[in-house]
Amino acid sequence: MAEVRGFFTPKTATGRASLVPSPPWHYSGDLLTIEYRTDPERVAELLPAPLEPAADDPGAVALIWADWQSCGDSREELLDPVRAQYKECFAVVRCAYQGRTYSRCVYIWVDKDFAIARGLHQGYPKKLGSIHMTRPHPYGPAPRLKPGAKLGATLAAGDRRLAEAVVTLREPADTNGFVNGHPMAHHRWLPSIEKDGGLALDELIESGAASFEGGTPWAADADLTLFESPTEELAGLVIREPIGAYYRQVGVTWDGGTRLTG
Amino acid sequence: MAEVRGFFTPKTATGRASLVPSPPWHYSGDLLTIEYRTDPERVAELLPAPLEPAADDPGAVALIWADWQSCGDSREELLDPVRAQYKECFAVVRCAYQGRTYSRCVYIWVDKDFAIARGLHQGYPKKLGSIHMTRPHPYGPAPRLKPGAKLGATLAAGDRRLAEAVVTLREPADTNGFVNGHPMAHHRWLPSIEKDGGLALDELIESGAASFEGGTPWAADADLTLFESPTEELAGLVIREPIGAYYRQVGVTWDGGTRLTG
Amino acid sequence: MAEVRGFFTPKTATGRASLVPSPPWHYSGDLLTIEYRTDPERVAELLPAPLEPAADDPGAVALIWADWQSCGDSREELLDPVRAQYKECFAVVRCAYQGRTYSRCVYIWVDKDFAIARGLHQGYPKKLGSIHMTRPHPYGPAPRLKPGAKLGATLAAGDRRLAEAVVTLREPADTNGFVNGHPMAHHRWLPSIEKDGGLALDELIESGAASFEGGTPWAADADLTLFESPTEELAGLVIREPIGAYYRQVGVTWDGGTRLTG
Amino acid sequence: MAEVRGFFTPKTATGRASLVPSPPWHYSGDLLTIEYRTDPERVAELLPAPLEPAADDPGAVALIWADWQSCGDSREELLDPVRAQYKECFAVVRCAYQGRTYSRCVYIWVDKDFAIARGLHQGYPKKLGSIHMTRPHPYGPAPRLKPGAKLGATLAAGDRRLAEAVVTLREPADTNGFVNGHPMAHHRWLPSIEKDGGLALDELIESGAASFEGGTPWAADADLTLFESPTEELAGLVIREPIGAYYRQVGVTWDGGTRLTG
Repeated sequence: MAEVRGFFTPKTATGRASLVPSPPWHYSGDLLTIEYRTDPERVAELLPAPLEPAADDPGAVALIWADWQSCGDSREELLDPVRAQYKECFAVVRCAYQGRTYSRCVYIWVDKDFAIARGLHQGYPKKLGSIHMTRPHPYGPAPRLKPGAKLGATLAAGDRRLAEAVVTLREPADTNGFVNGHPMAHHRWLPSIEKDGGLALDELIESGAASFEGGTPWAADADLTLFESPTEELAGLVIREPIGAYYRQVGVTWDGGTRLTG
Repeated sequence: MAEVRGFFTPKTATGRASLVPSPPWHYSGDLLTIEYRTDPERVAELLPAPLEPAADDPGAVALIWADWQSCGDSREELLDPVRAQYKECFAVVRCAYQGRTYSRCVYIWVDKDFAIARGLHQGYPKKLGSIHMTRPHPYGPAPRLKPGAKLGATLAAGDRRLAEAVVTLREPADTNGFVNGHPMAHHRWLPSIEKDGGLALDELIESGAASFEGGTPWAADADLTLFESPTEELAGLVIREPIGAYYRQVGVTWDGGTRLTG
Repeated sequence: MAEVRGFFTPKTATGRASLVPSPPWHYSGDLLTIEYRTDPERVAELLPAPLEPAADDPGAVALIWADWQSCGDSREELLDPVRAQYKECFAVVRCAYQGRTYSRCVYIWVDKDFAIARGLHQGYPKKLGSIHMTRPHPYGPAPRLKPGAKLGATLAAGDRRLAEAVVTLREPADTNGFVNGHPMAHHRWLPSIEKDGGLALDELIESGAASFEGGTPWAADADLTLFESPTEELAGLVIREPIGAYYRQVGVTWDGGTRLTG
Repeated sequence: MAEVRGFFTPKTATGRASLVPSPPWHYSGDLLTIEYRTDPERVAELLPAPLEPAADDPGAVALIWADWQSCGDSREELLDPVRAQYKECFAVVRCAYQGRTYSRCVYIWVDKDFAIARGLHQGYPKKLGSIHMTRPHPYGPAPRLKPGAKLGATLAAGDRRLAEAVVTLREPADTNGFVNGHPMAHHRWLPSIEKDGGLALDELIESGAASFEGGTPWAADADLTLFESPTEELAGLVIREPIGAYYRQVGVTWDGGTRLTG
């Protein structure tokens, strides 16, 4: 009898066809982060037990655009960039578990299948979307990385625009926000194949970067608008009060997490 | 503490954002099936224990193009067709488990995220691809549904063409092939979040159509070519001998399956 | 010195790379037509001299979704359907020139480059868009072609939804509308390469189908919504009064037109 | 009678819907240039009279990948980046006209409609394609801008890969190549709307950057492969001998050209 290989499906004799290689996964990217406060109940209703609202600032939300190049340890994807490049936009809130504060991604859209597969593994609730963000550039009309630079960012899915923002850089800063700064507390759920069979997989896991490097963050002001869609609930995280906005270039390695429950 | 709803992620207070609704899932579609024999070892190496090669014709492969409109019980997706329409191309082989013959999808490409999510649930090893197939039409240059009609079909992924075929209709027939005619035996695998932690989910499941209706199948001759790609192994199912080809319009409902092991 | 061949660019020694072959161009397709009245001034302001508003019903608009398979005389595109299939959505009004009534396409979105090139030639003001329309189907959940069948249709461009409609079939009919039923009066404009140089090409042309066949039209009721966008003016054709809606399958050949002025 | 406005179609009372604004057009971008020699006859056959092969090095070809952000004078596209960002891959050769050496783009693929429209105006023979190139990045696995950095680049169209390259940076350099360094000599052709009516527009035009700024070019070594396609002739520019490769970030403004003939 055969043994099949591959971190993810499809599994084969060689493992070569796997949609993603085994971790560690390495990422180079540009992050545009917009933080604001929504009604704390809008966050609380997205936190299934045993998660609880964060004790401090429980209505804080980060909406983050990211333009990534990513790869496995072989780094071969970087030389066939259709396999390495993707963009995403995701909403992060905070929560508490056993007295510790976690970040948690509640909505996320990406534009490549390998990113969906990694999200399945990591507990990110990924959908496909169309994501765009202005890139600073040293020449021509695109903005330089300096005070006053304006960066646009948009998100669409299902042929509807879901979010758009204009971010104006203010000055170098110490951080690029606090909402996405904790370890992630994510669920990994898969329904039973049996009708009305409940969940076949129901884990709460914790994960975070195995290593991180980043450039100087820039603090910014943001003008953000969310739009309704019959299939999305991002706009339910209504904008009550701006907190801040940030731009930063980063390098990250992800290499697994820890099961908390399940 | 909150309870979240939704068959799939993202889960929310309402369940409205779920990437797919609960089964049953209903499908209307056109199928173009090409059956051929490959080296039986190429099939056997894709069958992890406890699956075994089918006793009869163990090298038989079906490569199937499908142009679908699908929905949940509310049928609302059909009126916003970007949420209902998708195309797929998939390779099916046969295998045996406990003396019974099963079909098994070993490779599959789709062009929408909701189809990926359903595949995760059903054990289809889905990737994104670009899939095209000629549609018969009663007027103008497109082929009528009659003897001699020629239908083209192509598959690409990662900006590389993986398969192309021309199918020539011969005559009405009794079946649209035998390779994909059994219940499906699929694995549902998800790696542990812990590094080198093995599998968190490792199920062998069986599923098939809860109901089926279809038009008269057409028998056809096919000219099929598979292409190499560094990230795909479809071309490893080398074409040794043609079996037949078929065109058929069908309606299918899927409503869950049965766990065999795991 | 060399001579280059090809109906369109890029032109080469063989002509093989031309984005489109020489006419005649042949089309098989499904049309969903929604007719309504807007303010006649909204139409009149889109009709440059020497065109004038149509004498009869000058505010009539047809918004048409079409799902096409198309090819040149070789018909080879039909067997590599990524080169044949495309969808479009377009707005047609009526106008008068020298006492004769013409149809005129004022906005149009398509999803393939060969369709853009043909539009350049024929005077259609094409942009890229994402176009979807429900297809009737004999099996499964998709609608049968019968009274009460509901078909959805949507248009998006620039990651924004521009139009959405639900059409409910009523009964077989004699026509599929009147707004798009005349020869087309289109301009072919290209600015001078010289700055502030006016127009290098400024032609008013007439064209229509060289041959046409079609199935029984279906009359329908439509619920249509248009959405604003900073880069589009379709929503300026405000809906004042519905006229009717239609579904029809057609076959068309286009083989050139006539220059009226320029 | 109405007057319609807009640099390009669709033209309206306001001009707002025009697919592109009036020049000047401004560009920020990253260029990856690979220069090689093909058979001079392969270039000569792409040069219609009155163009002649360049006196010097008549088989030189530049294949250039570019990742752009572009806009009109309002710069508003930069804040809605789906309207500003596009990628392209294009092949440039050299030619002579009246004793002067020109560059000439013979094939080009882009991924947005506004880029197609600008190409129509400027005489670039644009098609849609899928274009990817590795971006240097200061953090994570993506390459730093330094000796030894490897950048991948790929081109596909019609679901087939047409070109792929790996470029290895060597050292800062004085130029980023010579093939694309002259004013462009392009034809602007549009066939007559009348069947067999010849050309309605047949101009030879010259154009170049109205202003240019750029960073330090990097010299590189390249490994380039071209692939056959039934609808493309890029692979006809067979690679006989490498010349060099270059990476450079640039800012460009284009503001019209000059008609040479027609």
